[in-house]
Amino acid sequence: MKRRLLLVSNSTLHGSGYLDHCQQHISHFFGKDVKRILFVPYALHDRDAYTKTARDKFKTLGGGNTFRLLKSLYDNKVVTEIRRRVLEDGVPYMGSSAGTNVATVSINTTNDMPIVYPPSFSAIGLVPFNINPHYLDTDPNSRHMGETREQRITQYHEEADTPCVLGLREGSLLLVEGNKATLLGTTKARLFSR
Amino acid sequence: MKRRLLLVSNSTLHGSGYLDHCQQHISHFFGKDVKRILFVPYALHDRDAYTKTARDKFKTLGGGNTFRLLKSLYDNKVVTEIRRRVLEDGVPYMGSSAGTNVATVSINTTNDMPIVYPPSFSAIGLVPFNINPHYLDTDPNSRHMGETREQRITQYHEEADTPCVLGLREGSLLLVEGNKATLLGTTKARLFSR
Repeated sequence: MKRRLLLVSNSTLHGSGYLDHCQQHISHFFGKDVKRILFVPYALHDRDAYTKTARDKFKTLGGGNTFRLLKSLYDNKVVTEIRRRVLEDGVPYMGSSAGTNVATVSINTTNDMPIVYPPSFSAIGLVPFNINPHYLDTDPNSRHMGETREQRITQYHEEADTPCVLGLREGSLLLVEGNKATLLGTTKARLFSR
Repeated sequence: MKRRLLLVSNSTLHGSGYLDHCQQHISHFFGKDVKRILFVPYALHDRDAYTKTARDKFKTLGGGNTFRLLKSLYDNKVVTEIRRRVLEDGVPYMGSSAGTNVATVSINTTNDMPIVYPPSFSAIGLVPFNINPHYLDTDPNSRHMGETREQRITQYHEEADTPCVLGLREGSLLLVEGNKATLLGTTKARLFSR
């Protein structure tokens, strides 16, 4: 399997500029010979503005709303084609946040609001596990009573046949080359299994 | 329309016990003559334990995971029946968190993780608007780069034909009697329109 993926938790890290925290990894991942990048702007509403921003500033490559992104990938019938090109032809894939979620088994572990209804939660399936981007450790001082991220992922694992979930903290990214995955960045990750 | 609904943002408020913050409203809402309450335990995995907890402690009535709750309502074919009983027969409905989300137009504005795939995001439709429970104001000191609640609801309103969204802060609840809705509790709410 030829796959080469770079799956980023988040595009902007507090206190630094767009993709600053993983700039070197991105340059190294694509290399000097890459002339063109296919940018998928489906995750935000104004696609032209989003594409311009991405082109100008190399901003949130694949970020935005996960439900909107996956629904548009299905509506435009490109899910299978992206999977084929990445897994069989070795076309490099990079995603951040929403773009990371859609690269995995399913979007069941996104943090996003379900603003649109995709025909399935199954995603492109470039790796055999799920990712929770922007992973947040439990804050013992929080007064908010919503479920913690850990509780949410535990609820997911109460369902049958659910894959492992990698909680990728902001500042972390995963480099996948063939059957090898390497965790990069400074903040590490947490792996949840059923 | 006979509907009588009590839609609670959250069952537990930081620093107080289960449903303490709305205990009086609940007693008043159901009144002295109500002998039996139908509790819907679909939103958590272990339904027996959840029912026992709810019976013992009058805990999170209708809380849990919104996707799991709505999927089970559809799987058990009770969505239409609950709507009919509440809107036509005037059976009182009370929900908290997930139980509040499923009472509205759709679950598009839940905060929960999409751990299961319901056949639709359309919900019971007891009111003609959506609610975002556990509503959180933007924290200007946050270092986390995920979207704020306001940004998420704004993204929802970029979609066509989306209803108003009531951001119900923890500690708030909405009493609906016929065509009149009254905001109760101490923390107020924020109304977003498209």
